[in-house]
Amino acid sequence: MTDNPTAAVLIIGNEILSGKTQDANLKFLGESLARLGIGLVEARVIRDEPAVIAAVVNECRARHTYVFTTGGIGPTHDDLTAESIALAFGVPLVVDEDARRRIGRGGRDLNPARLKMATVPEGASLIDNPVSHAPGFKIGNVYVMAGIPAVARAMFGAIEHELRGGDPILSASVDVFEREGDIAAPLDAIARRHGDVEIGSYPFARDGRFGACLVVRGTDRARIEAVLAEIRATLLPDG
Amino acid sequence: MTDNPTAAVLIIGNEILSGKTQDANLKFLGESLARLGIGLVEARVIRDEPAVIAAVVNECRARHTYVFTTGGIGPTHDDLTAESIALAFGVPLVVDEDARRRIGRGGRDLNPARLKMATVPEGASLIDNPVSHAPGFKIGNVYVMAGIPAVARAMFGAIEHELRGGDPILSASVDVFEREGDIAAPLDAIARRHGDVEIGSYPFARDGRFGACLVVRGTDRARIEAVLAEIRATLLPDG
Repeated sequence: MTDNPTAAVLIIGNEILSGKTQDANLKFLGESLARLGIGLVEARVIRDEPAVIAAVVNECRARHTYVFTTGGIGPTHDDLTAESIALAFGVPLVVDEDARRRIGRGGRDLNPARLKMATVPEGASLIDNPVSHAPGFKIGNVYVMAGIPAVARAMFGAIEHELRGGDPILSASVDVFEREGDIAAPLDAIARRHGDVEIGSYPFARDGRFGACLVVRGTDRARIEAVLAEIRATLLPDG
Repeated sequence: MTDNPTAAVLIIGNEILSGKTQDANLKFLGESLARLGIGLVEARVIRDEPAVIAAVVNECRARHTYVFTTGGIGPTHDDLTAESIALAFGVPLVVDEDARRRIGRGGRDLNPARLKMATVPEGASLIDNPVSHAPGFKIGNVYVMAGIPAVARAMFGAIEHELRGGDPILSASVDVFEREGDIAAPLDAIARRHGDVEIGSYPFARDGRFGACLVVRGTDRARIEAVLAEIRATLLPDG
């Protein structure tokens, strides 16, 4: 659809895969990246295992303009993301003095567990954490952020100005109270005529009625509106 | 932790990556598989692109006991999962007569779009859909289900009896109102002593207080309770 930069999101944490915790970062990151004109083309949910994390990071950072990770940067034994990223880049872990100062703010005890949160792969730069101080970090094209949604959002807010985006990916939609099986043929014909936009059909049942949300996505607002108008005229002749 | 069978979940759909739609299937599948003693070790969110879907399916079906997919089996032009799975297995698509009968129930017009929902990779067997009739399908170790959460759940309910599980993966947890940085060392010591269970620490802020939910997971209920008791005795000496 576009030549925009691409990204992968890695959601790191056994608690997401066990079903204990509902991920709440992917939707936010997908929306935010679209707004910046960066195409989120894959996401992976992986376990807290350094060899696995390192392999997936290396696969994704070679393939995409950006990689964003969430989770695993706290002080406990199951927080293994920093060492995994160091493994991926083949660099040692080092204590970052700036991070140590931030974590020690308010006179908090800088015990070994908290010092772990100041330990980053050599060559990494910090990502501000306006919520709870312990920073994330960036190395190469990999941005390493916290898993707690409020912190992940704040960290993304701290880095988004430095991301090189493309044309913002825009969308517009219309709800049609028809079954998908009845509108698929005319919708397909419209999609074939307009390859410069992406048309999605997402079925729903609402108040006992079946319907579909028809979404047009692209980078040209006028083209999106024109295709949406054609969809309306075709599928909602009386609407 | 165990020698249980493993699984991957593939969430197929541009709408999840664009942030339009919040995934609501992964948590359910993670919980359900844990209950059956099947370890969900990775999940991928991928676009509606046959070459991508086929490559990821082939990677995951070689690596895991089971692969479960959600999304992309409707009648519209952007529903490409069936053709992608056929591509992955190197087999043609064929109309399944039983699926055609199910979709035609209630005298619904069997137009080409609805016929597409009766079209499956050769050799596939159907997965019942008690909600909206159009079936999913299974081929090899790959179970292909709908994306709509109510339908995905119903389809999983229809197949779970045939899955070969291991020991159910159980868990128990305690909330500790301490900062993770203050409990990390004793928790690490406990985790090192008990490698037969998995201990996770998930921080939270609730009513203005910081804390962590400490989760013990494993397959032996008595061992889980013993380790949780040790965590309580160590971290909640007055509790």
